[in-house]
Formats: sequence, C-alpha cells, structure tokens
Amino acid sequence: MSADAGVIDLLGMLAYGELLAFDRMAADARLAPDLGRQARLAEMAAWEMANYRRLANRLAALGADPEDAMLPFVAALRTYHDNTEPGDWLEALTKAYVGEGISDDFFREVAQVLPAGVLADTDRALVLDVLHDDGYADFAAGEISAAIAADPKVANRLSMWARRLTGEALSQAQLVAQERSPLTALVLAGVDGESVDVLFGRLTSAHTARMTAVGLNN
Amino acid sequence: MSADAGVIDLLGMLAYGELLAFDRMAADARLAPDLGRQARLAEMAAWEMANYRRLANRLAALGADPEDAMLPFVAALRTYHDNTEPGDWLEALTKAYVGEGISDDFFREVAQVLPAGVLADTDRALVLDVLHDDGYADFAAGEISAAIAADPKVANRLSMWARRLTGEALSQAQLVAQERSPLTALVLAGVDGESVDVLFGRLTSAHTARMTAVGLNN
Repeated sequence: MSADAGVIDLLGMLAYGELLAFDRMAADARLAPDLGRQARLAEMAAWEMANYRRLANRLAALGADPEDAMLPFVAALRTYHDNTEPGDWLEALTKAYVGEGISDDFFREVAQVLPAGVLADTDRALVLDVLHDDGYADFAAGEISAAIAADPKVANRLSMWARRLTGEALSQAQLVAQERSPLTALVLAGVDGESVDVLFGRLTSAHTARMTAVGLNN
Repeated sequence: MSADAGVIDLLGMLAYGELLAFDRMAADARLAPDLGRQARLAEMAAWEMANYRRLANRLAALGADPEDAMLPFVAALRTYHDNTEPGDWLEALTKAYVGEGISDDFFREVAQVLPAGVLADTDRALVLDVLHDDGYADFAAGEISAAIAADPKVANRLSMWARRLTGEALSQAQLVAQERSPLTALVLAGVDGESVDVLFGRLTSAHTARMTAVGLNN
C-alpha cells in the first residue's frame, strides 16, 4: 500500500510534533509551583505519547518508516522549541495554550478540507483524533486567567510572550512550507478555491479569540 | 472512609515515585541515539503518568489529599534521582531496568503479603497493577545485552553503575523507613513471622538474577 508523499509528511510532522511536545512539556512541568500542577502538565505531556504511538503505527501500516517520516521536521520544530523555552510556569502554560491551539486549528483545517481521494477517511479520523482534548486547554486557560486576575500586569508580559510564540511558529512554518513540497501541495490542494490568505485569516481569528478569552491581547 | 495511615503512605510513595520516574525518564529520553529509541523511553515515561492518575484518584477516594500523601517522600526520592543522574543512554536504560525492577519487586512483596484486613483487595489490585509491564523491561534488557555483546568492556562500567544505583536506593529506603513509621509498621506486619532480612534476601536474589540475565555482575 503506497500512500501519497504529502500524507506521509502530514503524519510524520504530527508524530514528531507529539514527541517533541512531550519532551518540552515534561521539562516545563518542573516549573510548576506545586506537585498537583506538576502532575497536570506531566499528564498533558503523557497524552502526547499516546497520540505519537497511534501516528507511528499508522505510518508503519502505510509502509513508511516512522523515523524517516519525522526526520524532515526535526530542525524546524526543534528550533521553534529552542527559541521559545519558557522561563516560568505561566509562560509554559501560555505556550501550551497558544502553541497547541494554533497547531490544532491548522491540522483540523487541513484534515477537514482534503477530499477523500487525497486523505483516506482513516487518516482524516486519526488526525482529528490526535488533536488536543479541551480539558487541558481549559486547565491552562484557568491558570492564566487566575494569574491575570490576581495581578493585571501579568497580562502584558504574557501577551508579549504569546506574540513571540506566534512569530516563531510562523517563521518555522514558512521554512517547512518551502522545504517540503509534498506537504505544501497537500495543504494547497486542501484550500483549493480560496487563497492561503483566507486559511491564515481563519487561523488568526481563532487565535485572537483564544487570546481574548483568557485576558491576553494580540 | 478512613484508611490506615500506612496504606495512605504506601499509595502516596508509589504516586510520587511514578511522577518522579516520569520526570527523569522523560529527561533521559534525550540521551537516546535515535528518534525511535527516544520515543520508546518517552512511552515508558508516559506510562508512569497513567499509573500516577490511578493512584491519585484512589488516594482522593480514600479521603486523602494526593499532594499531602506524596510530600513525605519527595526528599528521599528526589535525592535518589539526583544522585543517580545517567550520563548516557545505556546508563539511563540500566537505571530504568535495575531501579524499577527492585522497586517493583518490593511493592509486589508488600502487596502480596499484607492481609485483607490491612490492605483492601482494591488497593492490593491497584498496587500490583501499576507495577511495570514486562515489555519495557524487555526493551531495556535487549539494549543492554546488545551493547555488551558489541563491546564486552561495557559490562564492567554498567555493573559498577548498577551497584551505585542499588547502594543509593538502599540508603534512601533506610531513611524513609526511619522517618515513616506507619509505612514501616505496614511492611513489618506484612513480613510477620519472618525477618526483614528474609524479605531483603528475596529482593537481592531477584536483583542478581536480573543482572545476570543481561550480562551484568553484582
């Protein structure tokens, strides 16, 4: 069974994203102010590995080596995380909330718009299924809102931090788009009939709504 | 519902052990020579969090605050891990293989010997259930054996490392036994009729067998 190179790219990028998100969230959990909160972030990290396993299994079933499928995305994703190392607990949660939010929106868009001829139903279901569970976003959102309520100055600092996160994410996404033509072709096929700008517009609105919901501003 | 203080201690120590093992294995996964192996250790780490959740839920159901139940064990377990930070991938796997092996044997002994009046069947089943799955020990054992086969000098280095691990574990276990009388009383009740030395003898034999199985010596 031979799958489209763009689909392998899509699953490979998602798989490496999970593995690296696990690694960084596990490290960020050390920033937690108490054991209960540390465990919550550690559980968010552990959840990424369950998704990683499903993606790696699917890649293998499609005849692709999971490691080979992930390798093209190592540099860009690692650079994103290296350039956005959180300095404290609230920065770590803001990164999880903002970063995973945008990334989930992007994969949801791609999975939903690709026709069945390009993305098999199994793969579409898998991509949608490995997106983050709302419970974790709610936890991060609750912590951020509470911190801003306790000290309104926190909003400014975290808003600036969130801007840095989105800037770095965009910069690395552009590099990936330039380097991985199969994946880029897949995304362009998905947004067929509308420009990539419209897709970015939707991602931006969703991001703005998420920021506003916790008291941060763009 | 009020549970024996020793049982709360037992579940609290297990819960914190899982949380800290997650933290250290997640960090150790960075030492892996490739993405596939990194993912395997990350999956071992993630598995600890699933067990953590079950233990924390059970503590809450018994009317105990999971965080309060874990706190008495933070210093000893953290000291063990701080003093046994692996320097490379094989040391990390040896630590997982040897350290988790001894700790699993200890909790299995305690769970099996305590009478139903002391340890409810639910708690016994939970303790036995959160012990590590053989698949992961097999993975670590396979990696260690293969490294020794490729370079017999590795056996000496890892044997010495394993001795340091068991020495540190014993030292911290003694501190915990001195400080936590409810837990110590529980373990002593479990070994009723035989001396603690006999229990330690059994743990030592199992450890020796595990070492020999991968080509390490005591």
